[in-house]
Amino acid sequence: MRVVALAGGVGGAKMVYGLAKCLPAEDLQVIVNTGDDFTHFGLKICPDLDTVCYTLAGMSNSETGWGRSGEHWNVMETLRKLGAPTWFRLGDLDLATHLERTRRLRNGQLLSQITADFCQSWGISIAVIPMSDDPVATRIELKDGGVLDFQEYFVRHRCEPVLRAIHFEGAKAAEPAPGVLEAIRRADVAIICPSNPWVSINPILAIGGIRDTLAAKKVLAVSPIIAGRAIKGPAAKMYREMGIAPSASAVAHTYLGLLNGFVLDTADHGEVNDIARWGIIPFATNILMVDSNDRKRLAQEILEYCARL
Amino acid sequence: MRVVALAGGVGGAKMVYGLAKCLPAEDLQVIVNTGDDFTHFGLKICPDLDTVCYTLAGMSNSETGWGRSGEHWNVMETLRKLGAPTWFRLGDLDLATHLERTRRLRNGQLLSQITADFCQSWGISIAVIPMSDDPVATRIELKDGGVLDFQEYFVRHRCEPVLRAIHFEGAKAAEPAPGVLEAIRRADVAIICPSNPWVSINPILAIGGIRDTLAAKKVLAVSPIIAGRAIKGPAAKMYREMGIAPSASAVAHTYLGLLNGFVLDTADHGEVNDIARWGIIPFATNILMVDSNDRKRLAQEILEYCARL
Repeated sequence: MRVVALAGGVGGAKMVYGLAKCLPAEDLQVIVNTGDDFTHFGLKICPDLDTVCYTLAGMSNSETGWGRSGEHWNVMETLRKLGAPTWFRLGDLDLATHLERTRRLRNGQLLSQITADFCQSWGISIAVIPMSDDPVATRIELKDGGVLDFQEYFVRHRCEPVLRAIHFEGAKAAEPAPGVLEAIRRADVAIICPSNPWVSINPILAIGGIRDTLAAKKVLAVSPIIAGRAIKGPAAKMYREMGIAPSASAVAHTYLGLLNGFVLDTADHGEVNDIARWGIIPFATNILMVDSNDRKRLAQEILEYCARL
Repeated sequence: MRVVALAGGVGGAKMVYGLAKCLPAEDLQVIVNTGDDFTHFGLKICPDLDTVCYTLAGMSNSETGWGRSGEHWNVMETLRKLGAPTWFRLGDLDLATHLERTRRLRNGQLLSQITADFCQSWGISIAVIPMSDDPVATRIELKDGGVLDFQEYFVRHRCEPVLRAIHFEGAKAAEPAPGVLEAIRRADVAIICPSNPWVSINPILAIGGIRDTLAAKKVLAVSPIIAGRAIKGPAAKMYREMGIAPSASAVAHTYLGLLNGFVLDTADHGEVNDIARWGIIPFATNILMVDSNDRKRLAQEILEYCARL
């Protein structure tokens, strides 16, 4: 079975890690959100791409959920002494990724090619593809009228401001990166990972051609919400601020028109009838991925469920 | 006595360090070459400014002659593993300088203001002023017809290619940074430090208004060449490739029309008559600065000589 996965940061990375343990490398491709990419200290930083790659390479920091394991902080500590902003934590090892990516981009290389080269260097055998080589910027419009760049909202302000709307600047003009539509077309099933629908998956779906190409495929999503709470991050808070009660079925509803199947936690088993009523075949299991065994077990269950879809 | 110093990298930094030990902070200002600044990995790197500042702050690496003492190499080592270019060595501590400078420049701050802020942060009390806030790029035209950016020539190719000409791109359009001409006007004497005349001092003199303003002042230079050899760097090789035998008097000749005095090593005492014939008052002493006592001793001797000029 050929699988294409759509992923954002931590939750998506864990799901892809599990799928990579269950599938031959040539049967798994992952399309990653780049809407939360930003430029900081002149460096191009791609948080979701890096989280997915670091996780697949086994070099992610499992305690923080971001960055690299065995990280050092010489640069950051020196920046602090110089009075520089330190709200976005850049580790020494992580910085090398941003520096080399920035150098190559300035030399005219494409983000998709750079990502492929990095994956090879890091021993990642599955294809990790940024959703687009063109810049797309997730911008958070606040209830009080201001607008924040995503990382300012997400990291600097810890998702505390109340939002009114989310915009993906540049998405209309952006083209899918080379390999994105091909990966969807050749897949037997597309899996939307348990990433934040608002800021991790919707930016991918906003790129011209991706949603339409997905619509012709068997698509399932995995809920990032259990018992009304996001496993990690601001997804539940975002649903509330958008006027929607956060729940697994609310997530399924976000992807309505696209989904054939939906994977939710057994804690939300009471919602399966609602979901089934929308023509989506629900599958309730333990979706919390605490360790790498969980990732593999969940991936295996989902692949078996896909085969039955 | 109020002094303005013109400086490039290592030799200039040592001279300025000595002068700073002999003069009240308000009586010393230093104008630093920025012609060898360049952008690497997207970061703005100002080697001469950093060498002068690190030296004045007592945090320079005296063994290498560049970079910071107590440096770490986590980023560089990780870049190497990623297949990135490593010919320009960027230490972890040093990188923080480039990152924060790049961030501020991108925010529209001027290099001169950023340098002043960094000096304050590093406890440097004398004014360190870049020659210009505008970009000037020293480019090395090679005998074989190619052209190299200065750092490519200097670091990557270790000054090995034979040069034909040196160009300061942008120098004609560049304005002196705020404070540069004022520093010269208020000085009783201008000291051209023992820096490379071709690529450290000439770029400063190429900025509109600097040479003319200096010409109205008492000016002396300190030779970077002893017994036909550069104390450090490619100055002697450059003289040879320009068709001039490298010597202290050749350096004095480079600045002809500008100099009232010239400081050379006792090893070159035989050249004092030639220099005096050009209307320049020579002063021969031990100009080699091996340790910080040498720097202070030489600075003191030069200041006494200035008083007699």
